Amino acid sequence: MQGKDMPGVNGGGPMWKQLNNEPPDSPTHYSDDELMLGYRDRGMESLDYEVVESVAYREDQAQRGIWHHASYVTLKWTFALLIGIGTGLAAFFINIAVENFSGWKFAATFAVMKHSYFLGLVVYIACNGALVFSSVYIVTQFAPAAAGSGIPEIKAYLNGVDTPGILLFRTLIGKILGSIGSVGGGLALGKEGPLVHTGACIASVLGQGGSTKYNANWRWLRRFKNDRDRRDLVTCGCAAGVAAAFRSPVGGVLFALEEVTSWWRSQLLWRVFFTSAVVAIVVRTAMGWCKNGKCGHFSSGGFIIWDISGGQDDYSFYELLPMAMLGAIGGLLGALFNQLTIWISTWRRNVLHRQGNRVMIIEVLLVSLITSILSFGLPMMTTCKPCPDPAKYPDVTCPLPSSNYGNYVNFFCSNENEYNDLATIFFNTQDDAIRNLFSTNTPNEYTTRSLLTFLVMFFSLAVLTFGTAVPSGQFVPGIMIGATYGRLVGILVVNASRKNSVDEGTYALLGAASFLGGSMRMTVSLCVIMVEITNNLQLLPLIMLVLLISKAVGDAFNNGFYEEQVKLRSLPLLESRPQRFMRTLAAKDAISTRKVVQFSRVSKVSQIVAVLRSTDHNGFPVVDNLDTGEPVVIGLILRSYLLVLLQAKTDFQHNSLPGDIRGQISFRYNMRDFTKPVSSKGLSIYEINISPQEMDMYIDLQPFVNPTPYIVPEDMSLTKVYNLFRLLGLRHICVVPRPSQVVGVITRKDLLPEVLEEKNGLEELMSSRGRYFLPHDRNQPLLEDLM
Amino acid sequence: MQGKDMPGVNGGGPMWKQLNNEPPDSPTHYSDDELMLGYRDRGMESLDYEVVESVAYREDQAQRGIWHHASYVTLKWTFALLIGIGTGLAAFFINIAVENFSGWKFAATFAVMKHSYFLGLVVYIACNGALVFSSVYIVTQFAPAAAGSGIPEIKAYLNGVDTPGILLFRTLIGKILGSIGSVGGGLALGKEGPLVHTGACIASVLGQGGSTKYNANWRWLRRFKNDRDRRDLVTCGCAAGVAAAFRSPVGGVLFALEEVTSWWRSQLLWRVFFTSAVVAIVVRTAMGWCKNGKCGHFSSGGFIIWDISGGQDDYSFYELLPMAMLGAIGGLLGALFNQLTIWISTWRRNVLHRQGNRVMIIEVLLVSLITSILSFGLPMMTTCKPCPDPAKYPDVTCPLPSSNYGNYVNFFCSNENEYNDLATIFFNTQDDAIRNLFSTNTPNEYTTRSLLTFLVMFFSLAVLTFGTAVPSGQFVPGIMIGATYGRLVGILVVNASRKNSVDEGTYALLGAASFLGGSMRMTVSLCVIMVEITNNLQLLPLIMLVLLISKAVGDAFNNGFYEEQVKLRSLPLLESRPQRFMRTLAAKDAISTRKVVQFSRVSKVSQIVAVLRSTDHNGFPVVDNLDTGEPVVIGLILRSYLLVLLQAKTDFQHNSLPGDIRGQISFRYNMRDFTKPVSSKGLSIYEINISPQEMDMYIDLQPFVNPTPYIVPEDMSLTKVYNLFRLLGLRHICVVPRPSQVVGVITRKDLLPEVLEEKNGLEELMSSRGRYFLPHDRNQPLLEDLM
Repeated sequence: MQGKDMPGVNGGGPMWKQLNNEPPDSPTHYSDDELMLGYRDRGMESLDYEVVESVAYREDQAQRGIWHHASYVTLKWTFALLIGIGTGLAAFFINIAVENFSGWKFAATFAVMKHSYFLGLVVYIACNGALVFSSVYIVTQFAPAAAGSGIPEIKAYLNGVDTPGILLFRTLIGKILGSIGSVGGGLALGKEGPLVHTGACIASVLGQGGSTKYNANWRWLRRFKNDRDRRDLVTCGCAAGVAAAFRSPVGGVLFALEEVTSWWRSQLLWRVFFTSAVVAIVVRTAMGWCKNGKCGHFSSGGFIIWDISGGQDDYSFYELLPMAMLGAIGGLLGALFNQLTIWISTWRRNVLHRQGNRVMIIEVLLVSLITSILSFGLPMMTTCKPCPDPAKYPDVTCPLPSSNYGNYVNFFCSNENEYNDLATIFFNTQDDAIRNLFSTNTPNEYTTRSLLTFLVMFFSLAVLTFGTAVPSGQFVPGIMIGATYGRLVGILVVNASRKNSVDEGTYALLGAASFLGGSMRMTVSLCVIMVEITNNLQLLPLIMLVLLISKAVGDAFNNGFYEEQVKLRSLPLLESRPQRFMRTLAAKDAISTRKVVQFSRVSKVSQIVAVLRSTDHNGFPVVDNLDTGEPVVIGLILRSYLLVLLQAKTDFQHNSLPGDIRGQISFRYNMRDFTKPVSSKGLSIYEINISPQEMDMYIDLQPFVNPTPYIVPEDMSLTKVYNLFRLLGLRHICVVPRPSQVVGVITRKDLLPEVLEEKNGLEELMSSRGRYFLPHDRNQPLLEDLM
Repeated sequence: MQGKDMPGVNGGGPMWKQLNNEPPDSPTHYSDDELMLGYRDRGMESLDYEVVESVAYREDQAQRGIWHHASYVTLKWTFALLIGIGTGLAAFFINIAVENFSGWKFAATFAVMKHSYFLGLVVYIACNGALVFSSVYIVTQFAPAAAGSGIPEIKAYLNGVDTPGILLFRTLIGKILGSIGSVGGGLALGKEGPLVHTGACIASVLGQGGSTKYNANWRWLRRFKNDRDRRDLVTCGCAAGVAAAFRSPVGGVLFALEEVTSWWRSQLLWRVFFTSAVVAIVVRTAMGWCKNGKCGHFSSGGFIIWDISGGQDDYSFYELLPMAMLGAIGGLLGALFNQLTIWISTWRRNVLHRQGNRVMIIEVLLVSLITSILSFGLPMMTTCKPCPDPAKYPDVTCPLPSSNYGNYVNFFCSNENEYNDLATIFFNTQDDAIRNLFSTNTPNEYTTRSLLTFLVMFFSLAVLTFGTAVPSGQFVPGIMIGATYGRLVGILVVNASRKNSVDEGTYALLGAASFLGGSMRMTVSLCVIMVEITNNLQLLPLIMLVLLISKAVGDAFNNGFYEEQVKLRSLPLLESRPQRFMRTLAAKDAISTRKVVQFSRVSKVSQIVAVLRSTDHNGFPVVDNLDTGEPVVIGLILRSYLLVLLQAKTDFQHNSLPGDIRGQISFRYNMRDFTKPVSSKGLSIYEINISPQEMDMYIDLQPFVNPTPYIVPEDMSLTKVYNLFRLLGLRHICVVPRPSQVVGVITRKDLLPEVLEEKNGLEELMSSRGRYFLPHDRNQPLLEDLM
């Protein structure tokens, strides 16, 4: 545990770099380990149970009290609060920046356009190009992991796969700045996915106490150095990201629950919920600061709430047919979108992006150029429409002055009483465009032709843009696409029914839901998000219906967008249900090699090094012999532990006899030493220098093993094994021969606290706190304890 | 599998009663078992895995194809649809009945009151008494399981504890009719909890194809005869119940997720969501039928949506203080409520209700009398208030004509321009009272004194009423209590701030949330339900804040309401996290007896009978000897299987040699025979008659064992065992000695489909469908296969 006890370290892998920065040993230095006490208590198997179960850990634990558990719980809630505040502020910053950059861009364009349309186009292209260049430059040069949505990687992280770099401080910065550039630069992508990634990064960076690399490191924050607590924090961060992106706190909780987490505990629900609530309050408060134009172009419209509470509050039964049709269209278009992005992303990964950063930058700039030309040029080629009759629609201001955003934009229209419907949606920020598409009581604002043009063009742009080297979300483009064909269907229904209550805006909303459902295949969370962003609960059943249909239709073609992206990145995600063919396999069919690589209790250093070099296994059974000579498995040791032991060298011994394990170990290591830092590759055997003399020494592995790894008999169905693995979030399962004896059967009744207390004596239990932690009594040989 | 193959059954336990009613064997008769194929495939360990793993089952499975899987999936969705429709209609029926009975009651009372107040009181008491008597009579005589809320029992059922009678058809009928009587009769209880129970019953009854007892049985519905599918259906039913009760589909999903289920799968989310959506549409459609007064006193007000969308949409920072105070009050009062109900319920269980149905009926009638007198008498003793200035509040109709429900009721006020504020909330249906408490823009409608009187009286009535022998929910009374003190705090804030935007109705809503949070300790679901019933998303962060505080305060005193009730009923619920002291225990400390009761592969009938009579274990290891003479555990057999085998007698054999297991078994039993019908006690060993000759015969148990039960080494931490048990939803875990050998280690990588396919050959896998199902090759002795 005492850093100063460690001999000079030669290798200097990333982990040790971090350790070297640590202050010398002090009483509070133990706090990391204490925290695991609560961690163990929380009622779920962890990815890191190996850490928690080892004797070294247990001994350490025996000295801690309930006070540390309380401080640990307090800390977790403090972190939830900090994540909420941080994510809320980050979202606020991104929104303010995007709105202002866009505002300046449009203001400059409109100003120049008064003199010359061509110069206006040039200014527009230049502004967009500059913003997009800043984004792609930051991403390619500084934070490559910030490219794309980030949600697939976070999903993989929470499933147990740590993509290098994904949760670093630099990724956080790259994501925030990159999002501002790419969204402000008018590309067909959104800032919502990146905000989820941002939330996750904030959570991870906070959990690590800042960034070591950039010297922004707070020791008091560095408490959660185990995988499971990090995962919990990242889950909170994801929920916070969604809550901040859509101002949808409940949607955030459900998104974390439905889409990203793999192991969910009801205890976590409560904390995630708190984080989301904090985000909602922070965003609201921050927006309060910006009243009265204090924040430039940023107004309340910057944060998406596309209020359609004034929309259609009643629907006829026959309207369910066009709505179901919307669902089907959404499913088809969503699946098509997924398929096209798969193809283009595959090509990018395999061909284009292999050619270096320069190509990536040029690619993005080209996409920006195309986007700018289309969004400027297409409205120019559209004929203007006369404004609606002021007598009939007294609330409508038409045309709007060109410096303003809203419906009925006068863009390039010579006549005073005309507006350009394509410019209203195309030559605008996406948030405003969606607001215009969702707008109620504006029948026939858009022509079918304009909507069709926009649909085709924007769909193509969205496909083209996704996968370029900028942070990009798919929510807002998806809503744009869906809202466009939704409005198209709405126009048809309005014309067919001639009923006043039917509203095009409502159909636009349902269209948006259907496209997201057809592409992302989320249900509950998406539904809640749609309700929260439109602030209209009445449409809930309709949104549910549309989502159900679009997901069902989409599922007939391919997987959800994020799953496909995960596959594309070859991230080894364990899906929630085992494959059908696993039923035909048994546990032994899944074992890596026929011959298992294992260690004796006291192993030679050279042998350990040889094994670590020759295999890439991460867990090794450790065997010993009973007094009778029979072999017995005393546990499982992790590769990472062995590497730490080899690096530290403190446990090397000259003889091959088991050491006296008590009293020495617990002060020699900090449990944190055994944990791999997040988003890095960890220590490698090739980074450790061991002298020939040391190679001849021995290590007693017993204190470092997890004495009771999960075991399954070799002929258990692989489906069962898979479920065990997946539900408990395991890293290793030991496959053992069919047992020759059953000591007993545990049933539900046996696990009831009352029964256990009666059987074992409550007082005894409470007084024997150390008993389980110290199963190997000093006066008793170790192995008698085992059998 | 062929019912006709079974010899005459003597015992006639409840299970066989059901089987005897079954039609003779037919090809479609197999369908039950096929369904388990999908069931197995769905990726989670079931409570019934023992069924699924036995050789008999596997052989049966080997003959099924993918088509059956598809029909199984279709069926599941059909059931979700049916549950949604059924629950929606049941809720509609209950609401219509309650509103009409209440309407007639109030109409009669008001009519008589015009002549004499005393006669009015008599009529009121008589009406209430009659309604309540109908409820308590139905419950005590016909459906005792319908008493109370039902949520604790459903929670226990989904945790794995089946309370007798809780999900029967008669309970469903008793619950529906009983709710109408008790709610219509004006008791201080709600219909929402019972609706959750109703939804669960509908799901269970549908899943069993109706009720055998009442000859309302549809064979085509009888597909889900295994515990897990039933549990899934019941989960859908719960969500449907909440969705119908509060018209809160998302809240329903979250309620099922947060409060009732113990094992949750993301696949289920999707189906539960669908059920809730169906309920929302059914309820809405049904309410459409009742427009224009077609349904008597029932109007849209019958279904609770207390719309406060016109309420306070802005709040100052300083208002967070009184709101936090509301949270604290809610926590305190909620905990007090829980504690008082525990005491009174304990007394009722141990003393009062032991004295028979007559006492229960008298008790309920007494409570009804007290309630009637208080709700009639207290408003009479209150002085009337003058109506608000019509110039200042032009929208207000004051006083309301006495036949109508709304604010400013003129009850007993002689002056034309006066109203009775206590009567507005006390002498009214609870739904209307809450609507009046939540009402916005009605400042100072209530005097502090009236609210305080009502708070104390209603709180006492609610405590007194809960636990009587009528169906009773705690949601609406909780909302009433909370809204009252919320409105009190609101009055204080309004008077202190003198700001126009502060609205008493908003505080009433927050108060309601705080009391429910303090009593039930739900967070996310309650929050969503509150938002959905008030149709106001803007208050979401405030509700979140209040709930967080009230739950935290309440948790300092006792457990949530439902948990306490579960404890009180001594239902052995496994909580989601293990107790702290379990860390000090190992698996072997939890084993029931030191000596494990086990069977040989071929056991004597007399021995089996003796063991079943002498222990109450439900699972027994089965051992055999290898050719070398070494013992080996071949699996675990369930008591219920042994009982079925003893009852059927078809597998009795005269010699003690292992039989040829293939080809015979699979057609002798229907897998359904092995499943206990829901809500019954199942077969007992004392109901089976076995002749002395039969006692000397043998049974080969091998085809009926679960060959690979989950195993844990005896010194594994009990915390780990608990988590394994709880997360996988197990019934039995076999504790085995520490293994002497590890065959291999399975890691994440080994479980990836690609890796498995490569290792085992995809074609081979697909063609070897029967391989796993038939591990014991005909040409190979069984036990060689095992080691």
